[in-house]
Amino acid sequence: MAEEPVSAVQLLRSQKVKLIEILSADADFVLQHADSRCLLSCRSYQQVKACHVPSEKTTELLDHIIQRGPEAAEGLIRLLKDEALQEAFPRLHFMKDQQVNTASSAHSSKVDALIFFSQPPDMADVVPSIGLVEDLAGPQHPEDSLVNHSEGQFFLNEAFKIIVDEVLNKGTDVQQKVCDWKEPEELAQLLDLELRAAGEPHHRLLERVRDVAKYSIKTSHPRFFNQQFAGVDYHSLAGRFLSEALNTNLYTYEAAPVFVLMENEVLRSLRLLIGWTEGDGIFCPGGSTSNMYAMNLARFQLFPEVKSQGLCGLPRLAIFTSSQSHYSVKKGAGFLGIGTDNVILVKVDDGGCMIPEDLDEKIALVKSQGTVPFIVSCTAGTTVQGAFDPLDRIADVCEKHKLWMHVDGAWGASVLFSKQHRHLLKGIERANSVAWNPHKLLLAGLQCSALLLRDCTGLLKRCHVANATYLFQQDKFYDLDLDIGNKSLQCSRKVDCLKLWLMWKAVGSSGLEERVNKAFFNARYFVQELKKRKGFYLLHEPEFLNICFWFIPPSLRGKEGNPDYQEKLAKVAPAIKERMMKKGSMMVGYQPLENKVNFFRMVVLSPLVSQEDMDFCLDEIERLGNDM
Amino acid sequence: MAEEPVSAVQLLRSQKVKLIEILSADADFVLQHADSRCLLSCRSYQQVKACHVPSEKTTELLDHIIQRGPEAAEGLIRLLKDEALQEAFPRLHFMKDQQVNTASSAHSSKVDALIFFSQPPDMADVVPSIGLVEDLAGPQHPEDSLVNHSEGQFFLNEAFKIIVDEVLNKGTDVQQKVCDWKEPEELAQLLDLELRAAGEPHHRLLERVRDVAKYSIKTSHPRFFNQQFAGVDYHSLAGRFLSEALNTNLYTYEAAPVFVLMENEVLRSLRLLIGWTEGDGIFCPGGSTSNMYAMNLARFQLFPEVKSQGLCGLPRLAIFTSSQSHYSVKKGAGFLGIGTDNVILVKVDDGGCMIPEDLDEKIALVKSQGTVPFIVSCTAGTTVQGAFDPLDRIADVCEKHKLWMHVDGAWGASVLFSKQHRHLLKGIERANSVAWNPHKLLLAGLQCSALLLRDCTGLLKRCHVANATYLFQQDKFYDLDLDIGNKSLQCSRKVDCLKLWLMWKAVGSSGLEERVNKAFFNARYFVQELKKRKGFYLLHEPEFLNICFWFIPPSLRGKEGNPDYQEKLAKVAPAIKERMMKKGSMMVGYQPLENKVNFFRMVVLSPLVSQEDMDFCLDEIERLGNDM
Repeated sequence: MAEEPVSAVQLLRSQKVKLIEILSADADFVLQHADSRCLLSCRSYQQVKACHVPSEKTTELLDHIIQRGPEAAEGLIRLLKDEALQEAFPRLHFMKDQQVNTASSAHSSKVDALIFFSQPPDMADVVPSIGLVEDLAGPQHPEDSLVNHSEGQFFLNEAFKIIVDEVLNKGTDVQQKVCDWKEPEELAQLLDLELRAAGEPHHRLLERVRDVAKYSIKTSHPRFFNQQFAGVDYHSLAGRFLSEALNTNLYTYEAAPVFVLMENEVLRSLRLLIGWTEGDGIFCPGGSTSNMYAMNLARFQLFPEVKSQGLCGLPRLAIFTSSQSHYSVKKGAGFLGIGTDNVILVKVDDGGCMIPEDLDEKIALVKSQGTVPFIVSCTAGTTVQGAFDPLDRIADVCEKHKLWMHVDGAWGASVLFSKQHRHLLKGIERANSVAWNPHKLLLAGLQCSALLLRDCTGLLKRCHVANATYLFQQDKFYDLDLDIGNKSLQCSRKVDCLKLWLMWKAVGSSGLEERVNKAFFNARYFVQELKKRKGFYLLHEPEFLNICFWFIPPSLRGKEGNPDYQEKLAKVAPAIKERMMKKGSMMVGYQPLENKVNFFRMVVLSPLVSQEDMDFCLDEIERLGNDM
Repeated sequence: MAEEPVSAVQLLRSQKVKLIEILSADADFVLQHADSRCLLSCRSYQQVKACHVPSEKTTELLDHIIQRGPEAAEGLIRLLKDEALQEAFPRLHFMKDQQVNTASSAHSSKVDALIFFSQPPDMADVVPSIGLVEDLAGPQHPEDSLVNHSEGQFFLNEAFKIIVDEVLNKGTDVQQKVCDWKEPEELAQLLDLELRAAGEPHHRLLERVRDVAKYSIKTSHPRFFNQQFAGVDYHSLAGRFLSEALNTNLYTYEAAPVFVLMENEVLRSLRLLIGWTEGDGIFCPGGSTSNMYAMNLARFQLFPEVKSQGLCGLPRLAIFTSSQSHYSVKKGAGFLGIGTDNVILVKVDDGGCMIPEDLDEKIALVKSQGTVPFIVSCTAGTTVQGAFDPLDRIADVCEKHKLWMHVDGAWGASVLFSKQHRHLLKGIERANSVAWNPHKLLLAGLQCSALLLRDCTGLLKRCHVANATYLFQQDKFYDLDLDIGNKSLQCSRKVDCLKLWLMWKAVGSSGLEERVNKAFFNARYFVQELKKRKGFYLLHEPEFLNICFWFIPPSLRGKEGNPDYQEKLAKVAPAIKERMMKKGSMMVGYQPLENKVNFFRMVVLSPLVSQEDMDFCLDEIERLGNDM
């Protein structure tokens, strides 16, 4: 029976009991032989020698050698096969037949690596200075000094524990602060950020890992209401760790077979929720980029020559979007050479929704001035008010004028998972493109931003392809359509689909639906409680998860007619925000909007938020603002 | 009486007293047997071994195994039923009849899960194990079903172990494949990618984690020579895990205090290596984006009105870059509305380096045609040949014509760490901007791409700022210059600085220098060995880490004069590549270049690569191509 040879470390470990029994008959004899072959570090030798019970001494000897790694283990096996030992311990005869994989032939003995990796953490400070430094000094390959798997995995394991402790336990505990506010100068000093010529020992690096976690904002904390992302999903997080460890670059099937297929499947599933059985798409580094891609595609469809010839010689182009759309539409217009002045802002109603009639009029006006409209960028879930533009009616206008209809659903498209609420996006299936960030409402984790297209003609690839023969060779042995990197403007592109896929597999579409419904339920609870309290006023009845409201402090109540009322009110939210940050009790954003002075924008989205957390939010605003 | 079989953990727990009594007769014997079956982590083993009272030792042993979880518990039960133990402890006979539910069949053992995750000593104060267990069992709050920390962390912990095992151990083991090639249809079926309404149990999800790892390309494998990234750095990886767990969005000091300061410090340190004591910069999602940013900045500096008014009405603009520059220059020109035809390709010498005289002539020619040149994009380390454009001489040309000088050093800028080799970038300090990807040569992990600027006037912010009052409020209580999100075209932006910072802290600039020098050393070794062999021909003596060469199979040797020689040679590299992929033994890229037919491009960069791996590469090409 020809068994696979195992590594020396594996062999010693599996035969430990037998070896202890045999060698304990004369433990000192074995130790001296081992030491004369330099199988132990000085320190290990002293430790083993200090044991006075023979079986303990043998156990220690074996353990130290196993921990030291493959070369020491191989040395011991050679010793055990040696004549002197074979004579002294006849029962050692069985060792003669044992074959091992040698470490020198192998980066391989990962088992050894693991053994080291799980050594007691409290030895970390001590062990590297004996074992590892000696390892480095010894007759090793030069590369060992650069990346050592066992040492590295030990460090990673310790760092993982700190991450769980600081970020996932303390960081989600309402008894702990959302942020530990420090002034920039103080924080810079605490963190000792400077990069120097010499490296640092592991225990110091682990302290740094803990410090970085400690002073960072706890975005998964149930009282983090500051942004349009919050909370943590552990399946997604596992997917993110795996993506990072695999370090895959998503451009070709050859380089990323799993993720090429997975991204296609995730995009297909998202498209199905929009109502498209066919189409195209890609993951982008954020919703702003998705919006820019949509603009570029719309422009390319209308003027394919723009890719090679540029805008020079073309008429002025115009983009239409609501006055409350995301600022990335303007940023994109600047970047794409269209110009921010050529972003025409369409009026919104009180709730922040685009008025289709105004859109229609503005398109006609712009056309009459010789400018060429080419895209309407609607918003499903605006950043401040959470408004949904009336997509169906906008689609009518787009059809009438033959314009590309883009939906910036970075925030709101996830509502498509909910049978109860998806009516908010009625008409989305008539769009040409949709930007959708599952890293927001679905908790997929930054970044996870899909651009989805109704197009089935390969527009995305035609628009973005470049002939890079070193990557996209035309004589490959598989279907070149799988080399999706041609669709992207990036070359290096991270894998953003795995975290969403794994989370989706874990909870199913129904679990994601539940998550969306829960967020709506929470937001409604918050609104209902807010209305019961004195001094809280909604800007507008919210239709989504953004709750915009003023807190009127006691001194301003009933003073609405005073000439300086607005000026004073404008200072309330920033002052309360400063207090809450310095206290670290919670985080909620504020901003002005058009003629409305600073108000709070509460975003309730994480399933980790309880009604108690929402009550706390209202209480805390009262506490922090009651003396104003 | 047919009792429900209990879990292994439950059984051990219920029989603990009896087992302690029996096994304490020879606690060391049991411990050594347990250790040789790998039932304990090394840390646990050390702790148990440290107990000197037999009953305590046995108690500790049982507790550690129970805490470790169902698999360890099942292993111990199998051991207790084993002949060796049954002989040593006759009273253990009762164990023979005990049946248990196996963990593999049971996601069920939530209790085990909870016990496991909540017991490690360092977490004990944070996680009230009883509370959690009760929460699960008792009447649940609706939110508990959505995100459960204890269950989630158990899953994350299990996934972490799989990641270490599959990606970091097997994935870096030369005895294992670099890729496990599957045809797309087969792979899609194996992975069962479809997303459904219902969720899946944890054990199934963990299998999925393993499958994703198993069928992905092992980019950290010592025989992955396919791309300009490879290898793994554990410090960086710990930084990446921490970044993912913190889920920070890098736009304001309020949202990302640690990372705003850290990014500034990392950028400052990179700039110092260029030779700039002042300047600006930002991390971008990849080098392509960095290059596009540089183009946009150069354009904005020349024509600030382009941001608001667009290109309409401006003269035709032109970009200059070498014929071997990265394809992102053209992609960027298309995206920015400049047009790919307005990217003027400058000639290169045999080594692939831009010829400054040709640049000067082409600029003059373009100007004479009424087109406005505005940027020269040089390359430090071209993608295929690894060529360094002569930066100092190009800087002279740029100064003469008053053009923005950009250096695409995505690949080559890391050489600045090496005193021995940094002469390759002489003149880089005269550039206006530099793109630098530490995720390539330095092993920082995807993505880590810095755009660095010499400008100190706030050009980057002026060029990209939009007035987003919900994020960049003007009445904050801290220095608004810290709200760096205004510099970016992204809104959501991942933290890419931490992994580089932590790695740099760990090994110091000197460690990174060593890494660069080692890569040069390895590349030179490969070239030297290649030259000794029959059938291998270099395109050109490499000056960097890209080694471009043909393998001439036996049937083509000496046939250089044949009319179909080139045609046949062109088919060799693709055919060998197909064989190597299907075998999974290694990965190395190939491509044609201008009039040169397909050749291999070997990239040696990872410190994990040994001389043996490089010898293997040459041997393997011979093996795979010898019948051609």
